[in-house]
Amino acid sequence: MHSDSFRNSTGKNHLAEIISIGDELLIGQVVNTNASWLADQLFLAGFLVKRIVTVPDDDQAIFAALDDAISRSGVVVLTGGLGPTADDITKPALCRYFKSEMVFNHQAFEQISTLFARRGWVVNERNRSQAILPASCTPLQNNSGTAPGMWFTEKGTVVVSLPGVPFEMQDIFLNELLPRLRQMEIANQLIYKTVLTTGAGESVIADRIASWEAALPQSFKLAYLPQPGLVRLRITGSGPDASSLGYELERLKQELVALLPDLVFGYDNDTIESVVGQKLIAASATLSTAESCTGGAIAALFTSVPGSSAFYRGTIVAYANDIKTGILKVRGDLLERHGAVSREVVESMALNAKELFETDYALATSGIAGPDGGTSEKPVGTVWIALAGFNGVVSELHKFGEHRGRNIRRTTLAAVNMLRKELDQSIKH
Amino acid sequence: MHSDSFRNSTGKNHLAEIISIGDELLIGQVVNTNASWLADQLFLAGFLVKRIVTVPDDDQAIFAALDDAISRSGVVVLTGGLGPTADDITKPALCRYFKSEMVFNHQAFEQISTLFARRGWVVNERNRSQAILPASCTPLQNNSGTAPGMWFTEKGTVVVSLPGVPFEMQDIFLNELLPRLRQMEIANQLIYKTVLTTGAGESVIADRIASWEAALPQSFKLAYLPQPGLVRLRITGSGPDASSLGYELERLKQELVALLPDLVFGYDNDTIESVVGQKLIAASATLSTAESCTGGAIAALFTSVPGSSAFYRGTIVAYANDIKTGILKVRGDLLERHGAVSREVVESMALNAKELFETDYALATSGIAGPDGGTSEKPVGTVWIALAGFNGVVSELHKFGEHRGRNIRRTTLAAVNMLRKELDQSIKH
Repeated sequence: MHSDSFRNSTGKNHLAEIISIGDELLIGQVVNTNASWLADQLFLAGFLVKRIVTVPDDDQAIFAALDDAISRSGVVVLTGGLGPTADDITKPALCRYFKSEMVFNHQAFEQISTLFARRGWVVNERNRSQAILPASCTPLQNNSGTAPGMWFTEKGTVVVSLPGVPFEMQDIFLNELLPRLRQMEIANQLIYKTVLTTGAGESVIADRIASWEAALPQSFKLAYLPQPGLVRLRITGSGPDASSLGYELERLKQELVALLPDLVFGYDNDTIESVVGQKLIAASATLSTAESCTGGAIAALFTSVPGSSAFYRGTIVAYANDIKTGILKVRGDLLERHGAVSREVVESMALNAKELFETDYALATSGIAGPDGGTSEKPVGTVWIALAGFNGVVSELHKFGEHRGRNIRRTTLAAVNMLRKELDQSIKH
Repeated sequence: MHSDSFRNSTGKNHLAEIISIGDELLIGQVVNTNASWLADQLFLAGFLVKRIVTVPDDDQAIFAALDDAISRSGVVVLTGGLGPTADDITKPALCRYFKSEMVFNHQAFEQISTLFARRGWVVNERNRSQAILPASCTPLQNNSGTAPGMWFTEKGTVVVSLPGVPFEMQDIFLNELLPRLRQMEIANQLIYKTVLTTGAGESVIADRIASWEAALPQSFKLAYLPQPGLVRLRITGSGPDASSLGYELERLKQELVALLPDLVFGYDNDTIESVVGQKLIAASATLSTAESCTGGAIAALFTSVPGSSAFYRGTIVAYANDIKTGILKVRGDLLERHGAVSREVVESMALNAKELFETDYALATSGIAGPDGGTSEKPVGTVWIALAGFNGVVSELHKFGEHRGRNIRRTTLAAVNMLRKELDQSIKH
């Protein structure tokens, strides 16, 4: 889906490269999440990233990477090596590369002072030195830290240096760099929408939407972006006219969602826990859980959302069977006759949690997460999920895989998705 | 900590580079965890990684990266682009680069057939094509998939191509490549030990071990590897004689641990939840929890460990105050007089959970995770943790930060670490 032919631009203006600087990246101490974040952002801003290179904190390596990148691309973004400590060498290296000299930049110092005043801190000499910058650069304001970004131009290429701390880098990119990049003359507009799904893998989704995908207009592409338990579907459109693209994108999105109503739970930066939380709040409904195999993972997911106390009242994790009978009041004969991993027990867990916590809905899970505890009748990955609500209780049997962590994650998402579908249903009727 | 002077080797034998191939990496769809994993492994095998570069699925880009890397380094590892689909171009590209020809490799085919037979699958034409390899390469067996690795030599440089699927790449690296790399003549041995800590940040640790760190022998280095809530301390030693290095490393490790007894919970690939779980099993002791601000995160952490049902019996997440009084039986007057976030309430939660779940130990948490709910007296980040055990109940007050997710994580780790210290204490006495 990613080739030069996707865009019509000629020359190097629409090409970009990323240079990551730092010894810690070259010994595997740190995963280079900055590079993938920047690549994603540059792609969505209409640029084609041709190369990502990581080099050590070393002048010669940085110079060689810059020579290469400037010869090929219109935009070069460097990250790392801008902090106040002795290790950080990017700033003097760039000063030498661009044959500039270091000068005190009043604008940059004012930005640092304002940030410090807001936090009630005192500016020391080390912080003050952050405002000494190569004379030939334009400083880019950093609202989250003391190291400003730097913008240079060289041989028709924009060279930008950003700090390595992810939230500082992202802050400067989004607030200072992106608006400037959007003004550069690149031939095509790029727009996109991400549709979030859970409940089926890539290949199942691909089968269900095959004819829709085959009929996509030439200027649109679909990307499958899997994450544990989720598949994100990103529709990207490219062309000279943003407004007609936007209209077409909305139509395609609606068609896609209509093909996957049981799987789609949200868009772009939504999470399933926040989507379901908002639906519960909108319905003035409350939720509790009773967890066995998920061991508290559903509770932890919901309570990770700020404001979840408005709808979430609590859970009982009944990891031992006598807790299921003792605290959760599941009848002993149900456990004996059907075993803990059964429709009867999981439905009883959900109904009893609903009553104990006095909630409108209750979710319950019971399954064999593994690696031990499987039998030929109920192998590892066998999971029952129940949902008690206004119309009694319903339950689902799932057969997941052999990996404990993934079984817990998939059970958690399946339970939350079961509640999402119930909430959508009850709003419709 | 990472410079040429750290090793004495001359020439390019001890230098390595990583080339990652794939359009998906250049549009930010995928974070390049393979590169950091390989960089870590190569570093620990005694190589100095000079550069990591990501290039598109494109012959010219791959050739240019190979020319560069081979001119500089003794080992070049490529990943990506070896699968059976049309997108994967690494294999034919390497065949052209090394001016070789594609031939059917019987040894590689036998490995694929054996793997398929073991899984009860049938070999199709696409799988068979995986055994067609450049004549000039030595195949490296893949025990987890169908794409073999390939080993070439060129101008005194070893060039190795590995699949992009992480567990296949790791399998071939560890089983096939690493033993061969260890036979290469590089001047120095490298050994290391990672000491795992929780409960203090980098700067606090640095202060406490400053004189120890300053007195480290020349051939040893210390790296701080922070993760959310944890700091890993890696001691690395380098020199010609592995056995004397090993002796010295053990001594340094013991000194370091003696300086941080309250913080060190394990080594290398340990996790705090598995370490504490093993201590509980060894002591034939059981655990329950009562969670408010952690919302099930402690339960989810313990139950992520296989076999945790041997010691962990369950949790009550009392997210609403009337659950604290109703199910957890906390006295209403304690809540009224002291508030939910107080020593009195959290200690009562721990004692009552211990009784309800009939366990030897119980942990309880109550705090203000944020972003809302803070007051001037109890700002966001205020957290009480209690531990009930054989000698009654003890509690700790923590003042964490403003970020909800990090507050939950830090509370969780602090609670587990509180139990770890108690278990270590009770074993000593």
